[in-house]
Amino acid sequence: MHSQKENKVSVLFSGGKDSSLTAFILAKIFEVELVTATFGLLSNWKQAEKVAELLNFPFKLLKMDEKILEETVQTIIKDGRPANGIKYIHKKVLEEIAKNSRLVADGVRRNDRVPVLSISEIMSFEEKFKVHYIQPLMGFSRKTLDLLTEKYFLFNEYKGESFPGAEYEFEIREMIKRKYGSSKIEEIFPKDHTHSIVYKIRD
Amino acid sequence: MHSQKENKVSVLFSGGKDSSLTAFILAKIFEVELVTATFGLLSNWKQAEKVAELLNFPFKLLKMDEKILEETVQTIIKDGRPANGIKYIHKKVLEEIAKNSRLVADGVRRNDRVPVLSISEIMSFEEKFKVHYIQPLMGFSRKTLDLLTEKYFLFNEYKGESFPGAEYEFEIREMIKRKYGSSKIEEIFPKDHTHSIVYKIRD
Repeated sequence: MHSQKENKVSVLFSGGKDSSLTAFILAKIFEVELVTATFGLLSNWKQAEKVAELLNFPFKLLKMDEKILEETVQTIIKDGRPANGIKYIHKKVLEEIAKNSRLVADGVRRNDRVPVLSISEIMSFEEKFKVHYIQPLMGFSRKTLDLLTEKYFLFNEYKGESFPGAEYEFEIREMIKRKYGSSKIEEIFPKDHTHSIVYKIRD
Repeated sequence: MHSQKENKVSVLFSGGKDSSLTAFILAKIFEVELVTATFGLLSNWKQAEKVAELLNFPFKLLKMDEKILEETVQTIIKDGRPANGIKYIHKKVLEEIAKNSRLVADGVRRNDRVPVLSISEIMSFEEKFKVHYIQPLMGFSRKTLDLLTEKYFLFNEYKGESFPGAEYEFEIREMIKRKYGSSKIEEIFPKDHTHSIVYKIRD
């Protein structure tokens, strides 16, 4: 009844525990392809490729226009905080994926600190690009996600830039550093920000 | 690492396509038990039991205090519309399940018409009852859910009261009918309301 294409979901992937869990849950109902965006500044996307291999899902590198990153950085500098910029870059990446996928997913959570698309933004995105946009973790609390990620994965958590993952933040920070210097980073980004990298699947 | 009890999720179940899909998705990551509430007025819960058998999940009937139904009906009559009453009864049923379960789930959707618990209500429910409250369908649009329910299930859709399912609405309507007569039902409930009953799992 459903074609192969209809059954394939592109999951935005960082190699962290949340996007790994997203892929893991969706693999039960769709054919999963992992997609990581790069703006060409860093090779942090290679972290995601490694974890994709571990999870045994096909991996696709999405080369994004550096202009999008420049616009993101401009917004963040103007705002003095990363929220709107990250929302902007996230939307642009989703739109780029949507050009070649009918099902698009990410690991956005119920009480994510990063501003997520509103219901009306989601509906207009789905309508405009003729896609299904799925956020499988939306109905889970952080506490429940911790239960699940610990059940399925072994992962490390890193603070700041000590060990970059494939999140947008790292290329954003890099561009800010190049243009405005390291001190600007400390002004703008919360110091307690952490990210995770999965290194093993539990048996 | 995790005990059996920690791994069992109680899924609020009506026998319809959405709660069936909820159970289906969660079965991939937890041990599922289906729970249907009854207030003792009708035996519509038997529909849910039948579908539970079909889906091959354990079924539990939750006997609720008729007083909750009375309070629900009072609210609905006072309001002249069902929204707040249904939110109230839903919350009371979740709380009753939470007394004996550590993981509680329902099939509430992203753009559900029925008012759902707010983020702060969810957090206080999880905190007060020491439970994980999971709404796996929250990150899916109606269009995506249609794709999935059609992929997995054969189901019928029914309008109004022609063929009662195990949703709260049917006992609410019954009590209003007994207390205020049939005409009151037509005043309060939208005529285009439909519900579904799953009758087969696709191979």
